[in-house]
Amino acid sequence: MSSIPFKIAIFGAGRIGNVHGRNIAEHRDSEVKYIVDPYLEGAQQLAAITGGMAASEDVVLNDSEIAAIAICTATAAHAELIEKGLKASKAVFCEKPIDLDMDRVNEVMTTVEAANAPLFLAFNRRFDPSVLEMKARILAGDIGELELVTVISKDPGGGLPISYLKTSGGMFRDMTIHDFDMARHIMGEDFVTVSAEASALTDPAIAGIGDIDTAVVTMRTASGKIAVITNSRRASFGYDQRVEAHGALGTLRTENVPANMSVLETADGVRRSKPLFFFVERYAQSYKNEWAHFVDVLKGKESPSATGEHGRKALALAEAAYISLKSGRRVAVDEVFDKKSQVAAADQEMPGLQ
Amino acid sequence: MSSIPFKIAIFGAGRIGNVHGRNIAEHRDSEVKYIVDPYLEGAQQLAAITGGMAASEDVVLNDSEIAAIAICTATAAHAELIEKGLKASKAVFCEKPIDLDMDRVNEVMTTVEAANAPLFLAFNRRFDPSVLEMKARILAGDIGELELVTVISKDPGGGLPISYLKTSGGMFRDMTIHDFDMARHIMGEDFVTVSAEASALTDPAIAGIGDIDTAVVTMRTASGKIAVITNSRRASFGYDQRVEAHGALGTLRTENVPANMSVLETADGVRRSKPLFFFVERYAQSYKNEWAHFVDVLKGKESPSATGEHGRKALALAEAAYISLKSGRRVAVDEVFDKKSQVAAADQEMPGLQ
Amino acid sequence: MSSIPFKIAIFGAGRIGNVHGRNIAEHRDSEVKYIVDPYLEGAQQLAAITGGMAASEDVVLNDSEIAAIAICTATAAHAELIEKGLKASKAVFCEKPIDLDMDRVNEVMTTVEAANAPLFLAFNRRFDPSVLEMKARILAGDIGELELVTVISKDPGGGLPISYLKTSGGMFRDMTIHDFDMARHIMGEDFVTVSAEASALTDPAIAGIGDIDTAVVTMRTASGKIAVITNSRRASFGYDQRVEAHGALGTLRTENVPANMSVLETADGVRRSKPLFFFVERYAQSYKNEWAHFVDVLKGKESPSATGEHGRKALALAEAAYISLKSGRRVAVDEVFDKKSQVAAADQEMPGLQ
Amino acid sequence: MSSIPFKIAIFGAGRIGNVHGRNIAEHRDSEVKYIVDPYLEGAQQLAAITGGMAASEDVVLNDSEIAAIAICTATAAHAELIEKGLKASKAVFCEKPIDLDMDRVNEVMTTVEAANAPLFLAFNRRFDPSVLEMKARILAGDIGELELVTVISKDPGGGLPISYLKTSGGMFRDMTIHDFDMARHIMGEDFVTVSAEASALTDPAIAGIGDIDTAVVTMRTASGKIAVITNSRRASFGYDQRVEAHGALGTLRTENVPANMSVLETADGVRRSKPLFFFVERYAQSYKNEWAHFVDVLKGKESPSATGEHGRKALALAEAAYISLKSGRRVAVDEVFDKKSQVAAADQEMPGLQ
Repeated sequence: MSSIPFKIAIFGAGRIGNVHGRNIAEHRDSEVKYIVDPYLEGAQQLAAITGGMAASEDVVLNDSEIAAIAICTATAAHAELIEKGLKASKAVFCEKPIDLDMDRVNEVMTTVEAANAPLFLAFNRRFDPSVLEMKARILAGDIGELELVTVISKDPGGGLPISYLKTSGGMFRDMTIHDFDMARHIMGEDFVTVSAEASALTDPAIAGIGDIDTAVVTMRTASGKIAVITNSRRASFGYDQRVEAHGALGTLRTENVPANMSVLETADGVRRSKPLFFFVERYAQSYKNEWAHFVDVLKGKESPSATGEHGRKALALAEAAYISLKSGRRVAVDEVFDKKSQVAAADQEMPGLQ
Repeated sequence: MSSIPFKIAIFGAGRIGNVHGRNIAEHRDSEVKYIVDPYLEGAQQLAAITGGMAASEDVVLNDSEIAAIAICTATAAHAELIEKGLKASKAVFCEKPIDLDMDRVNEVMTTVEAANAPLFLAFNRRFDPSVLEMKARILAGDIGELELVTVISKDPGGGLPISYLKTSGGMFRDMTIHDFDMARHIMGEDFVTVSAEASALTDPAIAGIGDIDTAVVTMRTASGKIAVITNSRRASFGYDQRVEAHGALGTLRTENVPANMSVLETADGVRRSKPLFFFVERYAQSYKNEWAHFVDVLKGKESPSATGEHGRKALALAEAAYISLKSGRRVAVDEVFDKKSQVAAADQEMPGLQ
Repeated sequence: MSSIPFKIAIFGAGRIGNVHGRNIAEHRDSEVKYIVDPYLEGAQQLAAITGGMAASEDVVLNDSEIAAIAICTATAAHAELIEKGLKASKAVFCEKPIDLDMDRVNEVMTTVEAANAPLFLAFNRRFDPSVLEMKARILAGDIGELELVTVISKDPGGGLPISYLKTSGGMFRDMTIHDFDMARHIMGEDFVTVSAEASALTDPAIAGIGDIDTAVVTMRTASGKIAVITNSRRASFGYDQRVEAHGALGTLRTENVPANMSVLETADGVRRSKPLFFFVERYAQSYKNEWAHFVDVLKGKESPSATGEHGRKALALAEAAYISLKSGRRVAVDEVFDKKSQVAAADQEMPGLQ
Repeated sequence: MSSIPFKIAIFGAGRIGNVHGRNIAEHRDSEVKYIVDPYLEGAQQLAAITGGMAASEDVVLNDSEIAAIAICTATAAHAELIEKGLKASKAVFCEKPIDLDMDRVNEVMTTVEAANAPLFLAFNRRFDPSVLEMKARILAGDIGELELVTVISKDPGGGLPISYLKTSGGMFRDMTIHDFDMARHIMGEDFVTVSAEASALTDPAIAGIGDIDTAVVTMRTASGKIAVITNSRRASFGYDQRVEAHGALGTLRTENVPANMSVLETADGVRRSKPLFFFVERYAQSYKNEWAHFVDVLKGKESPSATGEHGRKALALAEAAYISLKSGRRVAVDEVFDKKSQVAAADQEMPGLQ
């Protein structure tokens, strides 16, 4: 049986594996025991930093000391590792998404529901200090009944390489997925309809692979509340990540996090530093906070604040957005859940606009 | 023939008539000669403040000294006064809109096109100092090619009386009309499609008259650029009026104007003053700037930056938004111009959702 | 006897005369009757704008309809006009200072104390909206008992012409005088000691006339509270005018007023507009507010919030600052009031006076 | 001989020892080998976190593998440990100050000058990201020749316990010492005179031990540039740490670091989060940056940016401030260096020392 400090195995020693690995090692109640990565040198480097050791999947799943696995691999490996981990009665901390395919997600959810161990899906933005305060104030009633939620999300710099985008599942599944979850999380209600508008403006190569880079998605709850997401793959000035909730008594919003607090005032104007650029820096505290939350889950003090079901719902919104974008109509989210064939048909021509 | 200082006649001595009246009197190159208002006491009060005199419509239109008329009446009187003024060869400064009915607007536009005097439609927000700087920087290329425009517009306080809303033409024609014009003005391109989502959330009485109070409207240009408008009839904290343009090289945005620059820092947080509340204060400088622009039009130094055609296009977007809201589909703006019957049909059931 | 609207005579048709003249004309309960200026063309121009007429001093002082005079002349004429106005039983609105010479000020104060009409000394910054809110919150106890007051005051642009500075009385009497009054006003207590440090850094010509352009003045009240003023004659980016009060429960401060609320975010940083530059724009609302206050004084609803005594105290702090600067010691303000000869002696060698 | 990763011994396992210990362990080129603390349990806890082991002073100084010692003890032990470390040819990273007594500091400096290993005095604020950018921009000429430097520094919350203050050396030596160093660092010139004003306002017990809690200190360089420090032991809203530099071309300033970027807008105003409160959080990045700098010193890539001499100069300014406060005159810093007896005499009666 697992005991404190909880022993953790990390799958994937890449960038995000390094982020979580350091946080696991730093937390007083968890420690890294194993790193699993086919690229052995990467596994060993992360092992050296975190105090763990490189190991095979089999060793991990058969070690009864392991309390949880942290899945930090490429997306394609997520679903199978979740299933294996849960079946071995390990708690699972998994980077989003479960999978890019809704049918596969539904399959995994069957395992999740039957498991005797929890799955936490790492929607890190929920754990940003500003978002935590925003959500707490909404729950405290500071802005009254919600009416409108706005999520602005733009990737820093000049966008991602086409090689990555080709396998990303398309912008709505790869990037907007975070915003779908954020909008649901802040709204605290499910969305019933989705309308999408999008273009490929930043790079002809993006249009070339049928993807999009600029989008607005509008959603409505059964009670008539509205959320709108604005996306771009390119923001010259940094990581543009803002959320705004409007209610009967006022507005709550989060502003970007500046790199520093210096101000230069000259005849040219008043200049401040740009927002933090790289997600590892921008969400450094979120990653720490979400690991601390997961440790509390391991202790049985909390249940996972984001689960497979949240991942599934975010993916459903992405699917509905693609259908809306293509058909030019407001799409009921139920269509995605109920009419699998239609989703599948839409999927075959996705991502994007062609 | 008119000479400097230009002699002006004001129609309508209400709140907005008072705003323009003072600005006309204060400008070095214009002066108020007449005030026309069936409520004689109001006309006389404004006459006393501005140095003009109460008069009848006939006197005004037959006085060759009058260079221009400023139409500050209720909306219902706009169209006819524009026609009378232009036919009398007076330059016309008119509060938006020309009319709530597209057919009537089209009729007026025939007169406008045939006139030997200019019509300026007072879309005051274009003249806000922040918007002026924003537009100038966009034209200067500071943020490169535009991709996304966002307009957030919320009315201050608890919303307007139902008696007003009943005759307003509905939120898209009465309130969003400003935002449609702003989005076009900032984008610098026409929109070809419109998608709308809306609800009545702030007051059951608004739903009761078939109107809406909370909305998101998304528009797309022929080149694929996207604009999104977010509206609410109620903002507890003040007049929420923000515009944001995102381009290849960066973002330009305008923030709300605080009532003052005091900051209170205590154990409860850091508190600043609310945004200006009342439109007369919030847009005080815009009203001065637009009158100065109109005087330059009278001098022949500039042509009107906002004309009847801008008003017609904004109204067309409002019509298309209603069709989209009702039909749940992306609507081509051309439908509104081309298929009058459809608009008319939609109109009969508008405003709003029923 | 004076009645509403109060009829006002303005002395001095220069820049500040124009500011007050327009506000007097615009206020619903006051109107401009006379303008007195030896430069007749200036008087007539202001008369045309305000609806008054050019007149001589004698006409003004003998016209029983005149409720008040507004003194907007050069400093040298202030003292005599105050005396003449009060002796003619006119209320007096006078631009600061009463005089640059403490003995002359004391003389005028004798007349003020004997007069049956009020003197208001126009320390305009007290009427800035941010300062009004700050003072109100201090009085409301929002930051508890005060401990520290900080005044930062820098002139916009490259400083004033040497020709002006030569007759200005020196920086402490000409510029810091506003800050001395502001510090007293915010602190709500008299200062008993003054320590000053200063340099001439911006322009060798300023050192050449024995004046200073950069200074820090520290003052202490009998109860041990401390205020510090920081001055420069040159701020490239605009009019830098900030006040900060620190108390047991928190801090209140005022930030500079930006020219507009636009924000540009690019790879070069986040840029906002500069603070307002010119005092007429920066303090436009203050001038309106102080005239409204003076009208309330004329109505007997309020007593003058800033009087000759406030001017005298501000001047005493300036005198003490000069003594400290020269002697290198903490100076008791009582020295300035009690030991006239010392002041006189110090004056003869003072920076700023030659 | 030392090699990478550098092996480090930490003296003192208290709060600041924990901060540096974690940063040493986290840095890729350093690791913790020993922890020395008479309170063995504390040493062992920190050893567990950092991967080091508890050890005695003798073991540390005689272990040739140790590249450097990090002194994180109470102030009283600093001087002797610096001497022992340097004599054992260990590089020394020491928390400020060297000692509260100038004579003892001078003694230590003799050892420092003779040593074959470097001393780095941990003035952490220099390494704050905002201060780093500010200094870089000053050096790049962005605001031209400096004229004025302002340092505002207020302790968070309700102040420190009297038991601590009794042994602190007094506010100027304990708290303002950071600001003296910051002012010199930003100004880039030595100060030649000091004038101080101070009070005990926040707590009668502070006056009771002869200390102060509220102060303004003004300093002047040989070229006439001026710096002013404003201090309070109590800021209800958080750690108030701002620096401002004014030059011929503009102003550079640093604002406080908010706990998060959420904004709440309601009818009560616009509320943001308070500045970070606790120094460990506020200066988290500074501590990381200064350790990275010290590693570069160990590598021979940089020389210490803050040395014993900087500590000595900051202490001299504190001594001069005490003399000024007591005597009421502007004090030449040379007095403190040249006239030891005078300093000693002043010390005996100083606030803060009894």
